[in-house]
Amino acid sequence: MRMYDVIRKKRDGGTLNKEEIYAFIRGYVAGEIPDYQASALLMAIYFRGMTDEETANLTFAMRDSGDKLDLSHLGGVRVDKHSTGGVGDKTSLIAMPVVASCGVTVAKMSGRGLGHTGGTVDKLEAFPGFRTDLSSAEFESAVKEAGIAIVGQSGTLAPADKLLYALRDVTATVDSIPLIASSIMSKKLAADDHCIVLDVKTGSGAFMKTVEESTLLAKTMVEIGKRAGKKMRALITDMDIPLGNAVGNALEVQEAISVLSSNGPADLTEVSLSLAAHMLCLAGKGTLSACEEMAKNAIASGAALKTLAQMVKMQGGDERLVSQPQLFAKAQCSYAVCARESGYITAVNAESYGTASLLLGAGRNKKEDAIDLSAGIMLCKKTGDSVKKGEVIARLYAAREELFPAAESVLLAATKIGGEPPKKRPLILAVVE
Amino acid sequence: MRMYDVIRKKRDGGTLNKEEIYAFIRGYVAGEIPDYQASALLMAIYFRGMTDEETANLTFAMRDSGDKLDLSHLGGVRVDKHSTGGVGDKTSLIAMPVVASCGVTVAKMSGRGLGHTGGTVDKLEAFPGFRTDLSSAEFESAVKEAGIAIVGQSGTLAPADKLLYALRDVTATVDSIPLIASSIMSKKLAADDHCIVLDVKTGSGAFMKTVEESTLLAKTMVEIGKRAGKKMRALITDMDIPLGNAVGNALEVQEAISVLSSNGPADLTEVSLSLAAHMLCLAGKGTLSACEEMAKNAIASGAALKTLAQMVKMQGGDERLVSQPQLFAKAQCSYAVCARESGYITAVNAESYGTASLLLGAGRNKKEDAIDLSAGIMLCKKTGDSVKKGEVIARLYAAREELFPAAESVLLAATKIGGEPPKKRPLILAVVE
Repeated sequence: MRMYDVIRKKRDGGTLNKEEIYAFIRGYVAGEIPDYQASALLMAIYFRGMTDEETANLTFAMRDSGDKLDLSHLGGVRVDKHSTGGVGDKTSLIAMPVVASCGVTVAKMSGRGLGHTGGTVDKLEAFPGFRTDLSSAEFESAVKEAGIAIVGQSGTLAPADKLLYALRDVTATVDSIPLIASSIMSKKLAADDHCIVLDVKTGSGAFMKTVEESTLLAKTMVEIGKRAGKKMRALITDMDIPLGNAVGNALEVQEAISVLSSNGPADLTEVSLSLAAHMLCLAGKGTLSACEEMAKNAIASGAALKTLAQMVKMQGGDERLVSQPQLFAKAQCSYAVCARESGYITAVNAESYGTASLLLGAGRNKKEDAIDLSAGIMLCKKTGDSVKKGEVIARLYAAREELFPAAESVLLAATKIGGEPPKKRPLILAVVE
Repeated sequence: MRMYDVIRKKRDGGTLNKEEIYAFIRGYVAGEIPDYQASALLMAIYFRGMTDEETANLTFAMRDSGDKLDLSHLGGVRVDKHSTGGVGDKTSLIAMPVVASCGVTVAKMSGRGLGHTGGTVDKLEAFPGFRTDLSSAEFESAVKEAGIAIVGQSGTLAPADKLLYALRDVTATVDSIPLIASSIMSKKLAADDHCIVLDVKTGSGAFMKTVEESTLLAKTMVEIGKRAGKKMRALITDMDIPLGNAVGNALEVQEAISVLSSNGPADLTEVSLSLAAHMLCLAGKGTLSACEEMAKNAIASGAALKTLAQMVKMQGGDERLVSQPQLFAKAQCSYAVCARESGYITAVNAESYGTASLLLGAGRNKKEDAIDLSAGIMLCKKTGDSVKKGEVIARLYAAREELFPAAESVLLAATKIGGEPPKKRPLILAVVE
């Protein structure tokens, strides 16, 4: 196989076979295929797309480029959940304890986040003492005890994806459905789960801005997973508006605890329960409506909250904070953002809310950046709410006063106020299976 | 300017402005823009194309990346001719002396060839003693004396093109009209001529296989030249069949001499005279029909042959060979290729004829390869001719007998013999101006 011929074939609209795709990935990881040929191929893929089979083979080749987990010794049905990412998305912190409390194993490896806030493991570190670097034995006993453990990625899962993503990032070849789908799924498939529920966010605060794009991405990922023998489902969920009211790591953990304590925001509760129900359903726990009931009961009975506390304890964290969230560290400074006019919030740019959170110190620009776990935003008013001029629409939290002005102007510019309340759109826009 | 934004703009179908294109070329030549970003941009250009203005700016940026000739001290109207390349194309050796003998200056820098045979300067070296590395003073006095000089390229003309071409060659981004046109024209514009006539070859022995593609390339190059203030014209000429009967360096020079002596093949004579007439016409020597008459007379009177002899002499070559071509060095071995069946030659693959010539030693695979100037092919039968089984259709010339079998099989496979004579197509398919 000559790489030139592979590029040319794709350029001319041909379909790459398994051997060609594996040879590309192997050669690229080995440093035998230069970046300039890889980037030419990526751009050709951007324009020509890939068939389902090509996309699956690309995913498998990337999965096979590194370590693969073997969690079979944990027994039981293991289910994973993946979100394509959105502003204020703390559904994992809710759905996973719910699922685990219903007897389905959650043994999750989770990446740290780049962007508005940290990833799930960053957020969990808001519990003092919480460890995300468990040994295999510790991981196993945590899963056995609590039915759930969430740790950081160890080993080299899908190193080909890491290399290719870095190249895509500087060659304008990120926005390609087959490349996005294979990147996400290569890491998911390297983990050892039976079922995967995907939460594909759509709207102003998500990578995918339209339902059509999101559905196409969801279908592509579901198809890849099925070809790898996984039980798959994807929910297309709204991210035009941040989910819940909290944006920021410790703030989001506290909000997740409020949902698990039956007094969280309605939108966040609805999406988290729906994700949990689909996870339970995929894991064979019954019909979707039976699983919805099961998930609700897990919250109402306090079982899910108890599971979260057990997990925190097993991973070395201070589990008292689950029942006494007032113990979470508070930011040094806070600031109230007030409406400049009266009316209805007709639309927000959720991505800009994320940017404001980043400006306050809650997220990372670069991998090496430190996160301020207590920084972030609590929204008091969201899209559809009526506001009066001078009324507080959000509270900002940060370590230093001087971080507020920039975050405030970004937040205000991202909040449209008008005379009429906007049309509401459903939180769950579609289910792909 | 960030290179990422330039790639993304082109990827999304945008139009790059002059600053962006110059920044790309400058940054790439300086080594500040990496190959992987350049190749991603090239692939995006492959898919999105370029406007006339973008193509012109890319050409100008490449032209401006290196030395530019200043031949103004030579005075007079200077005209250049460029062929996109074909098998057995020796029209320069004929048209240029014709034009010079009519009083239009030809001061040409010509590259060495890669492929079937050498380039024009390689061919001219078939004259013993011929020098293509004249000093500026020698070049000037040759032009003053003979009205014509043809030397090899010196200095660094359009180094950006050299770098980009090498990258395109390994990333499947060669076949793009704006990239081909800007590559050719960047070097042409770095020379200092007033008029340029392009010979865009089309058919089985040319880079462009269809008249449509060739016309598009011709229009693109003519437009670039006009935007640079040059008088431009392009002829689309047939290259489904090798031009004339000779393929190989010394063989082609002898055939050019036969045309200048009024006894060359009709097809080669027609195309060469047409190119010469358009060159004269562009240079202001009268109407096209007047210039056609002038070019014919230059041959009939022997003036063009005399000009060739003067040029050879001024450049240190043995000009006696112009009047006594039997003095050219002969190949050590020859071999007759005979028809395997009777009928008409219905079609040939001219590119394969070129490959056969390369196998005999007449061309280069790599820049460093030596050329056997006396090797090559003399065609005895061409498309449209009737042949009898066992009749000689071509004679092969090479330094060693063992080179014949491979060349013979390539040549036979490339020669289709059938029951009906094929439809003839004109030699000059279109004129673009």
